Amino acid sequence: MNSAGVPSIRFLCYTHGMTDNPKPDRRTDGVPSDPIVAVATALAPAALGIVRASGGGALTLASRVFSRPQKLLQAASHTLVYGWILDPGTGSKIDEVVAAVYRAPAGFTGEDAVEIICHGGPAVVTAVYRAFLRAGFRQAEGGEFSLRAFANGKTDLTRAEAIGEIIAAKTAEARKKASARLSGSLSAAFSAIRAKVLEAAAAVAVEIEYPEDEETVKGAFRPSLIRSAAEDLRALSATWAAEKLYQNGAELVLAGATNAGKSRLFNLLLKEERAIVSEIHGTTRDWIEAEADFGGIPVRLFDTAGLRETSNRIEAEGISRTRGLLERADIIFYVVDSAQGLTGEDRAFLCGESGKRTPVFLVWNKTDREDSLPAERIPPEWIPQTGTVFRGVFPVSAKTGDGLAYLVKCAGETLLANTESVSAETALGSLRQKKAAENAEACLRTALQNAEAGFPLDTVIQDLEDALFALGEITGETVTADVLEEVFSKFCVGK
Amino acid sequence: MNSAGVPSIRFLCYTHGMTDNPKPDRRTDGVPSDPIVAVATALAPAALGIVRASGGGALTLASRVFSRPQKLLQAASHTLVYGWILDPGTGSKIDEVVAAVYRAPAGFTGEDAVEIICHGGPAVVTAVYRAFLRAGFRQAEGGEFSLRAFANGKTDLTRAEAIGEIIAAKTAEARKKASARLSGSLSAAFSAIRAKVLEAAAAVAVEIEYPEDEETVKGAFRPSLIRSAAEDLRALSATWAAEKLYQNGAELVLAGATNAGKSRLFNLLLKEERAIVSEIHGTTRDWIEAEADFGGIPVRLFDTAGLRETSNRIEAEGISRTRGLLERADIIFYVVDSAQGLTGEDRAFLCGESGKRTPVFLVWNKTDREDSLPAERIPPEWIPQTGTVFRGVFPVSAKTGDGLAYLVKCAGETLLANTESVSAETALGSLRQKKAAENAEACLRTALQNAEAGFPLDTVIQDLEDALFALGEITGETVTADVLEEVFSKFCVGK
Repeated sequence: MNSAGVPSIRFLCYTHGMTDNPKPDRRTDGVPSDPIVAVATALAPAALGIVRASGGGALTLASRVFSRPQKLLQAASHTLVYGWILDPGTGSKIDEVVAAVYRAPAGFTGEDAVEIICHGGPAVVTAVYRAFLRAGFRQAEGGEFSLRAFANGKTDLTRAEAIGEIIAAKTAEARKKASARLSGSLSAAFSAIRAKVLEAAAAVAVEIEYPEDEETVKGAFRPSLIRSAAEDLRALSATWAAEKLYQNGAELVLAGATNAGKSRLFNLLLKEERAIVSEIHGTTRDWIEAEADFGGIPVRLFDTAGLRETSNRIEAEGISRTRGLLERADIIFYVVDSAQGLTGEDRAFLCGESGKRTPVFLVWNKTDREDSLPAERIPPEWIPQTGTVFRGVFPVSAKTGDGLAYLVKCAGETLLANTESVSAETALGSLRQKKAAENAEACLRTALQNAEAGFPLDTVIQDLEDALFALGEITGETVTADVLEEVFSKFCVGK
Repeated sequence: MNSAGVPSIRFLCYTHGMTDNPKPDRRTDGVPSDPIVAVATALAPAALGIVRASGGGALTLASRVFSRPQKLLQAASHTLVYGWILDPGTGSKIDEVVAAVYRAPAGFTGEDAVEIICHGGPAVVTAVYRAFLRAGFRQAEGGEFSLRAFANGKTDLTRAEAIGEIIAAKTAEARKKASARLSGSLSAAFSAIRAKVLEAAAAVAVEIEYPEDEETVKGAFRPSLIRSAAEDLRALSATWAAEKLYQNGAELVLAGATNAGKSRLFNLLLKEERAIVSEIHGTTRDWIEAEADFGGIPVRLFDTAGLRETSNRIEAEGISRTRGLLERADIIFYVVDSAQGLTGEDRAFLCGESGKRTPVFLVWNKTDREDSLPAERIPPEWIPQTGTVFRGVFPVSAKTGDGLAYLVKCAGETLLANTESVSAETALGSLRQKKAAENAEACLRTALQNAEAGFPLDTVIQDLEDALFALGEITGETVTADVLEEVFSKFCVGK
């Protein structure tokens, strides 16, 4: 170490691969560790359910409502103890269970914890949960277990968010993308970017610290490193558009005249494209809806058949609701009976819709019928010009399923058309991450501009520090209370 | 042992407290033990889910899709192993999980078993389940885990049934009753009855075996013992009516003129009486329904408001549906606006309904209003005579909630009016048990009659054996394949 002076903390941090926050667990200030409990499985009839508890004294409190308290208290971490949950008031048996015991710092939260694997009916799971509340546990808030896991260094923020994404995943594809993030692929990508920025910042810090040391200073500012990090961030930000589609899905409305075969197509789509929600119900008679899987994109289907069939009753409200659906739709399947051909009403709709932004697929249905007209015979002037909105004529038989796969494939491609990096191995998992990544990128670009404009290095390093702070927010290294609130408050209770 | 002869197997069995089935595990013939897997938690977004696997080689198969196969294979029974479930095709990570390991004969099924505690989204739980299928597990049938538990002597039939009852329980009261059965209260009651019949049968067997031994024969036939067992069975059978109500619930229809306040009462009932299903939806506009807890009885509420309000449109089908609801109802709340008083239409309904079997409660609503008429002012001739069907006038304010508790209490009492032994500590859990108990009782009564009529003891002991067989069917000691099928096929998959 050079005797010219004592190195600054900032210098030490950078050269040791840290930001200027020398105490990373500072972020856990204010995260409580009192004993909490929540129902962790869905409250519906099922074979098994889980009531989860964690925090200081969790095992002692749990033993108060457990038929074999000593066994529970003496259990090693990662063991299962058979017993009964008892009513703390009457001592009567509530359920025959197995208690999974975790001791700090092992287990998900890093605290002493117990998961009661009980039977799965809503009444019994609720009864076990209430027994724990009466034993002295506090009702957990949404995401509180994950927040504790984060506070105790068991997970970073992108991985914590990935758990929420896995739970919410509606399709296998969405789940896969979230699993990759949970396994740390995104954390690794950000670590690599952060390493580049840190290296660039350290070089600048050396130049600030030892301005006369020519050998050290040589090539101190590393624009190519900063530019590379900025490009990496831009590429990651671009993944969000597709990711958002896989997470949030799209809405597809089936429109067309009565008897065009909308309901049959609706049912076929649900059957062939693995309906995500099997129960089909509508709040009113105006439409029915259900969710299908279009190549990994969860697509909510709306069948407006109900409305059309009762429209002769002048149900103005119903019509306006269907209008609302069409306005909101990401995609429209306009179904026509190919044995009837296009009517004036169809034409009015197609030309009316074609002025708008929603992509319309003309589904030329009932091609299995002998009297079906070939799609080629439709007079060209009756069909809107193929373009960004009208997606062409798709011959389909909702009876045999013929043509369906191609229609679904094209619809999926249309939904993904404006997104990039669909097949990216590493993709962002939330809008929060995208905002922080964009923010970090902007700071890096500013650093480049300021360096080029000849600003003092103190200014440049501040830009790089801002970028590091934004990057730290993504994974949680330099996180603020607001960010923690934003991440964990979205979680369901029990996670 | 007397040298007069070799005692018969029947004699030995009875005197050793067994039936003449000397090999109780014979019942397990044909129950497979191959490795099976099922999703054990409800498929809905939730923090955690469980995929359950059991059978020969379960741990070896599971290790094929587990990131730490050796740890899993070496794990002791009742321990938790952290790891990832891997896609058996690509090796990619599916989910970060904890595997609960059970080794035969410990654990629920008595076989080698593993429960994967994974994240709780439908997509991820399904992905873990599919990985297990591809690892070589077979899809479990409904109740197959419980059937194996029974076959391996881990539970008797009443306790196995109690698990199904706990899962299905809609109210805390129904859950409590099922928990008592799971804890063995019903098994114990039947054991006590069986002991009486066995004692009586043993005495008769001794008399048949050693007819000349006067001292042994003395008082061989024990009518009081048999009568006592028969009475016990009758008392248990009587508990089913109330139990059935707690399990299956009742239907309550809200009827009355438009603006009588039906919807407000409906919503208040849901709020005050802890709605079991929070989501209110109807398949059509004709009515809305939801479930509330009337003192432990799950009561499905039907609000016919929708129909009434659109009845001027001559929706014949809707009216006939509501008629159907009223016919099927276990109880009717007929709601009247007390500020309006009874109309001719109300009177027609009340007098029309009073001829039928469904109990009707006249809900004198809106008592909070200043212009509310006192119920006493209703002309007596307008109100049906209080009787088995018309339950009287109940002043209520659906706005303030005043009078609601009393109305609900009376409705609950009416539902339980024709049932006995409501508060019985030990109650039957299924119609199957009731049929077998009645069958056993009938056999005992026949034994008493035959003995009294002077029939040979060989006939009497046959009656007692029939009773023992019926009793054995309840707990599963002398069970047939048909009974096993009846019990376990009703179970959900995963149980």
